[in-house]
Amino acid sequence: MKILSTKNEQIKHLVHLKDKRDRDRHQEYIIEGYRELFHAKNANIPLKKIFYCPELFLGQNEMDLIHSFQNCEKIECADEPFMKMSYRDRPDGLIAIASQMHRKREELEKILDSKAPFIVVVESIEKPGNLGSILRSCDATAVDALIVCDPKTDIHNPNVIRSSVGAFFLVPIFEMESHEAIRLLKEHHISVLATTPHTDTFYDDVDLRQGVAIVLGTEQLGLSDLWMGEANLKVKMPMLGTIDSLNVSNAASIMMYEVVRQRRHASRL
Amino acid sequence: MKILSTKNEQIKHLVHLKDKRDRDRHQEYIIEGYRELFHAKNANIPLKKIFYCPELFLGQNEMDLIHSFQNCEKIECADEPFMKMSYRDRPDGLIAIASQMHRKREELEKILDSKAPFIVVVESIEKPGNLGSILRSCDATAVDALIVCDPKTDIHNPNVIRSSVGAFFLVPIFEMESHEAIRLLKEHHISVLATTPHTDTFYDDVDLRQGVAIVLGTEQLGLSDLWMGEANLKVKMPMLGTIDSLNVSNAASIMMYEVVRQRRHASRL
Repeated sequence: MKILSTKNEQIKHLVHLKDKRDRDRHQEYIIEGYRELFHAKNANIPLKKIFYCPELFLGQNEMDLIHSFQNCEKIECADEPFMKMSYRDRPDGLIAIASQMHRKREELEKILDSKAPFIVVVESIEKPGNLGSILRSCDATAVDALIVCDPKTDIHNPNVIRSSVGAFFLVPIFEMESHEAIRLLKEHHISVLATTPHTDTFYDDVDLRQGVAIVLGTEQLGLSDLWMGEANLKVKMPMLGTIDSLNVSNAASIMMYEVVRQRRHASRL
Repeated sequence: MKILSTKNEQIKHLVHLKDKRDRDRHQEYIIEGYRELFHAKNANIPLKKIFYCPELFLGQNEMDLIHSFQNCEKIECADEPFMKMSYRDRPDGLIAIASQMHRKREELEKILDSKAPFIVVVESIEKPGNLGSILRSCDATAVDALIVCDPKTDIHNPNVIRSSVGAFFLVPIFEMESHEAIRLLKEHHISVLATTPHTDTFYDDVDLRQGVAIVLGTEQLGLSDLWMGEANLKVKMPMLGTIDSLNVSNAASIMMYEVVRQRRHASRL
């Protein structure tokens, strides 16, 4: 039964999920786009419903992707109701609802018990776009876990998923309070690395081949005193200009690639 | 004479400058925020007008900053007309109009003639936020010039300036067509470095201590065949996950910091 009206209750329900309160209440979230759903499929993310609008498809493989999701309601929509649901400039005819998944602490503990885990922590991050692009770099550098502490953005915000281009489904994400994350990292003897101008040590002069957690602060204020006090590695980036900080996702990515660089060169020895 | 009405013609004029066509027609642009105006001041950017709303000031130094701009009209506004002009979530009571500045090719040629120039090129960049955060990294890594080729975003878009947190005023920016940029770089024997998965060379295995231009492609499609064909250094980043690319400003920042790392270590020898 193709949906023709923007007033359809199922359309309205999806539109409501753009609001955090509705996402929390229903424990659901939105996944839009071929690329994002492709990665969701490969990560075995179950969908509740998928809405599709063939007039908007950009490629040939959309129907195959839709049918690859099992136990999921598949609903065709006309252009107008689809556009009402989409949050993109260039919709590609695919939008889905999935159940929120919150990973358990035990899963993180298992990762922290592994050999030289590579962890990224973001504290009180505000902008969905920054969290999304950090996720993309986490996937690229094979980060073992991203810990999101005291976030000011919802990890299930559609813009996180969009800007992650699907890395959201590929990187194990854990949400918890800062004090709990610190306790777990310390218990597992993971070095806590903070980036700060107030040190003489450059970021590429410390050994990052052991278990390490790279901790990034908020866009506005940087890292809190709590995390700064607990950091046992403090490093700075060369800042050769006038502005005193980098965009948080850029700082995160530079640090992550330094970890990869060191571990890659070490494995050559 | 304090402006009380949102219908004031000067308020309307500034609001129109949010539109690229009006910015182009008047050859003006908007600078909002204390931090941005502070860097504009230090870079000797002349302002035409500055609007201020003391009720919204967040600090103590706003009036001093305002008075430090000479030959500039200073206009107090009530809260309501100020909010109409602001494009921020948290306005801080300062917003100005400046004349657009377009740097001349001769200035770029002089930079390209210097010793081991460090150039960044962005091709057809679309998102103001990406351009802004690339500018921030350019400032931090002392890039000599940013060349913006065939942009799909206006470099004077308010969101470029906002996300650059003022680096817009600190980094020499040149706008030109790709074929002209290629000609200038080649004439001055600057290595053109492209990032691509289709090479065996890692980004940290090439010598970046000589004059180099790091070229970044669009968010959607990467680098064009034109630039890829002209690149004499092709490097890849380790991509250890599933997603095949990084956010463009993250990729740019990692490459820029690799240049700094190599040059810093070389200077220690």
